[in-house]
Amino acid sequence: MAKEKSQKNPLAKLFGAKSKPGKSTRAPLALLEAKAKGKTISDKELQRSAKDHLWLHFTRHSPFQTGDMLIIERAEGHYLFDSKGNRVIDGLSGLFAANAGHGRQELADAAAKQMVQLDFMPLWGLAYPGAIELAERLLSYAPKDLNRIFFTTGGGEAVETAWKIAKQYFKLTGKPTKTKVISRMTAYHGTSHGALSITGIAAMKAVFEPLVPSTIRVPNTNWYRNSHLHESEEAFGIWAANRVEEAILMEGPDTVAAIFVEPIQNSGGCFTAHPAYYKRLREICDKYDVILVADETITGYGRSGEMFACQRYGIEPDMMITAKAITSGAQPLGALFMKEKFFEPYKEGTTILPHGYTFAAHPVACAVALANLDIYDREKLVDNVRTNSPIFRKTLEKLYDLPIVGDVRGDGYFFAIELVKDQKTKETFTKAESEKLLRGFLSKALYDAGLYARADDRGDPVVQVAPPLTMGPKDFDEMERIIRQVLKEAWKRI
Amino acid sequence: MAKEKSQKNPLAKLFGAKSKPGKSTRAPLALLEAKAKGKTISDKELQRSAKDHLWLHFTRHSPFQTGDMLIIERAEGHYLFDSKGNRVIDGLSGLFAANAGHGRQELADAAAKQMVQLDFMPLWGLAYPGAIELAERLLSYAPKDLNRIFFTTGGGEAVETAWKIAKQYFKLTGKPTKTKVISRMTAYHGTSHGALSITGIAAMKAVFEPLVPSTIRVPNTNWYRNSHLHESEEAFGIWAANRVEEAILMEGPDTVAAIFVEPIQNSGGCFTAHPAYYKRLREICDKYDVILVADETITGYGRSGEMFACQRYGIEPDMMITAKAITSGAQPLGALFMKEKFFEPYKEGTTILPHGYTFAAHPVACAVALANLDIYDREKLVDNVRTNSPIFRKTLEKLYDLPIVGDVRGDGYFFAIELVKDQKTKETFTKAESEKLLRGFLSKALYDAGLYARADDRGDPVVQVAPPLTMGPKDFDEMERIIRQVLKEAWKRI
Repeated sequence: MAKEKSQKNPLAKLFGAKSKPGKSTRAPLALLEAKAKGKTISDKELQRSAKDHLWLHFTRHSPFQTGDMLIIERAEGHYLFDSKGNRVIDGLSGLFAANAGHGRQELADAAAKQMVQLDFMPLWGLAYPGAIELAERLLSYAPKDLNRIFFTTGGGEAVETAWKIAKQYFKLTGKPTKTKVISRMTAYHGTSHGALSITGIAAMKAVFEPLVPSTIRVPNTNWYRNSHLHESEEAFGIWAANRVEEAILMEGPDTVAAIFVEPIQNSGGCFTAHPAYYKRLREICDKYDVILVADETITGYGRSGEMFACQRYGIEPDMMITAKAITSGAQPLGALFMKEKFFEPYKEGTTILPHGYTFAAHPVACAVALANLDIYDREKLVDNVRTNSPIFRKTLEKLYDLPIVGDVRGDGYFFAIELVKDQKTKETFTKAESEKLLRGFLSKALYDAGLYARADDRGDPVVQVAPPLTMGPKDFDEMERIIRQVLKEAWKRI
Repeated sequence: MAKEKSQKNPLAKLFGAKSKPGKSTRAPLALLEAKAKGKTISDKELQRSAKDHLWLHFTRHSPFQTGDMLIIERAEGHYLFDSKGNRVIDGLSGLFAANAGHGRQELADAAAKQMVQLDFMPLWGLAYPGAIELAERLLSYAPKDLNRIFFTTGGGEAVETAWKIAKQYFKLTGKPTKTKVISRMTAYHGTSHGALSITGIAAMKAVFEPLVPSTIRVPNTNWYRNSHLHESEEAFGIWAANRVEEAILMEGPDTVAAIFVEPIQNSGGCFTAHPAYYKRLREICDKYDVILVADETITGYGRSGEMFACQRYGIEPDMMITAKAITSGAQPLGALFMKEKFFEPYKEGTTILPHGYTFAAHPVACAVALANLDIYDREKLVDNVRTNSPIFRKTLEKLYDLPIVGDVRGDGYFFAIELVKDQKTKETFTKAESEKLLRGFLSKALYDAGLYARADDRGDPVVQVAPPLTMGPKDFDEMERIIRQVLKEAWKRI
């Protein structure tokens, strides 16, 4: 530190100083005041308070200047109950998470028991039985060469961790310039600066630049929008994989650390890929020593019809990211699975991974995850998906008789319905039409008709469903009926 | 997308392909096997499993090749219980989190009740009563001009969020080039790429470069190591604050968005600052329209002797980050508090903050946070700190009779004891000595003597204590006795 002498200081003694008195710019805390007076809290008071003080995630707030927001008060099984007294089907498992359905008493019991036993310790320099047992239990379902688990509190943190381990691992093994990451167009991998840099949705990134250099985008596996260019989905898959090789060669193999892929890409609308794509990706990763990271934040834990989608498509990942349904959403948790080779350099000397999260592998989250896996085993949730997925697909494919339905795609319990102006030409909607269609009508209309689903246009406009794995054919029929009714109305309006 | 035609594809039909059979490179899942056989799980089996499959955070793993790791099985009140049958004082509140002490039945009850009521919904496009009520409740304790809350699952995510909001806010308000962040030497703000870029610990960052451009470091308020250069702590504080102004001027005020400061800086060892420092910082931030972000991840929720340390030191933050003790650690949660001005641009038109986290404001975490605040109110935990902190300080200052103790500093229930080779000259230990002292001896010796505390050398070597806010003078005596005994032994060994 420089040896500058500070100037004589004119300030009065300030220790113990408090914030200056004066008028607060804070809106009234009306909910607390009402509670203090013993008043029952009504929807009106909840609305006022939420509008005054809460900042919702990924949410346009301007409609709340005049209208109300959606407030969910309760969830049970396949249903959500809101503050206006409505009951709707949870067609999205909360957010691809509540795979065992909502309100499981045994998860609550597991949480309470653990919280009294060991409410909190971080996984820093120490371990606890729940995290140890959960690691083994998770590995018992995973692709066979994955051996080591780094826990986080969610998917984004696991993405951050995978990248950081990749960078340090290559430095420890003599390839210090391998730092870059390849990811796919429109793919979502999280919102913290590292994960956001890997995310392929340009509109989510622009205002936050500069982000982390250097990440590179390649095409995704949107077969619906590319089928006219290739003779088969398999050929398209190999073309798309070869674009990864091209990117590696353009950047220089010595600078590329990893490629991140979701086995079924969510954003854009449930893009599956031909297994040839993944086989070719594996060859390319082996050829150039690039780490293949499967981001199974959404597809993990049965969503695809296997415990992990990597198993369904014969993907052999070097690292695998999971979160969300690991606890059926009932607790924040994420888990990064890895081949042992990444950990090897850390077994010796003073080498450490200088990385961690206070709340990762939270003891209560680990206990809930174990109880959740008991439910999976006992109720054979993954078998249920495997059995019923073809029925689900067929049910949704009935919608093809509506002229607005361009494509029904996905796998397992995870489907997207792409909306078009013309089924034959596949003409899509303009930005303004999509805005009017999705935000102006569809989201609310689906909800009002009894279905919580996702209307999204990060790619072309789609309606997505990803219900709890406990659902069956009757539920599919009900969802199809609601979507049909709402899409018919939408078609009239355009 | 380019209209390239893919080559004829030679691959056989691959749909439904599974991972190739063959020998797994995974270590045995011995714990699960033992459980399946009905065996009682011993420490030996836990150790084997943890060593084979878990990757601990911020942990050197090489010692586990020969020795065992610490496995914590239970926690109650002020005590931790490990798998070898030891009971130790939790002198660190887990990791600055378990402020109400461990194993609170009413937190467990609140969690279980909430999990059955509403186990999970994300705060995306909707709200739920727990998050709404918690936002108001938190604001009722906060500096008066903070009005809006963005929830996360922890401190690092709140740091990421603050930076992202800062960048977008300035773009929305006509200052699009304000993107940079200033932070302080040795300060820890998290490990995801954005938070890590703001972190001031060079050794934690080097292997992960390139990080997010552009962040700038300024000196911290380490008075112990700077007192010889300034005529008073107040003068030093003003000098240090003026270094922030200098950094802003060197970068160009139009490019600087925010400065992040912990009111008491943890890493380096509990650096407090004279209130004049914060007053001057406020003036500088006002002058150059730079956002003052108080990172209260550690100091929040009573640790300093006020609910928030900003209140104790008269700091007027524009944003305030909290996490950890918001639930007394019993659930993952973080909360970014903000002045309303940051939210104003988002009230109109199609503007949104394209940012969020699935598990942020988890309903169960919100319920536990509310129950935790009930404990704070009923047991007057913050008053307890305010009353007893001077006694705690005096108790620790007794250690000055040991030649190894150079400085005792901190506030509230948050103190660091800096270790030196010479009290008079303040000569510190070499890197090798520090390594031998802290990792080779102190951490384990403190634990073996009955105290879980932190021996750290991210700055100069310190022992840190941050016990639950429920502790009192008898506990201070016990901690002092253990530290004294261990430091005496340490002195003999150097």
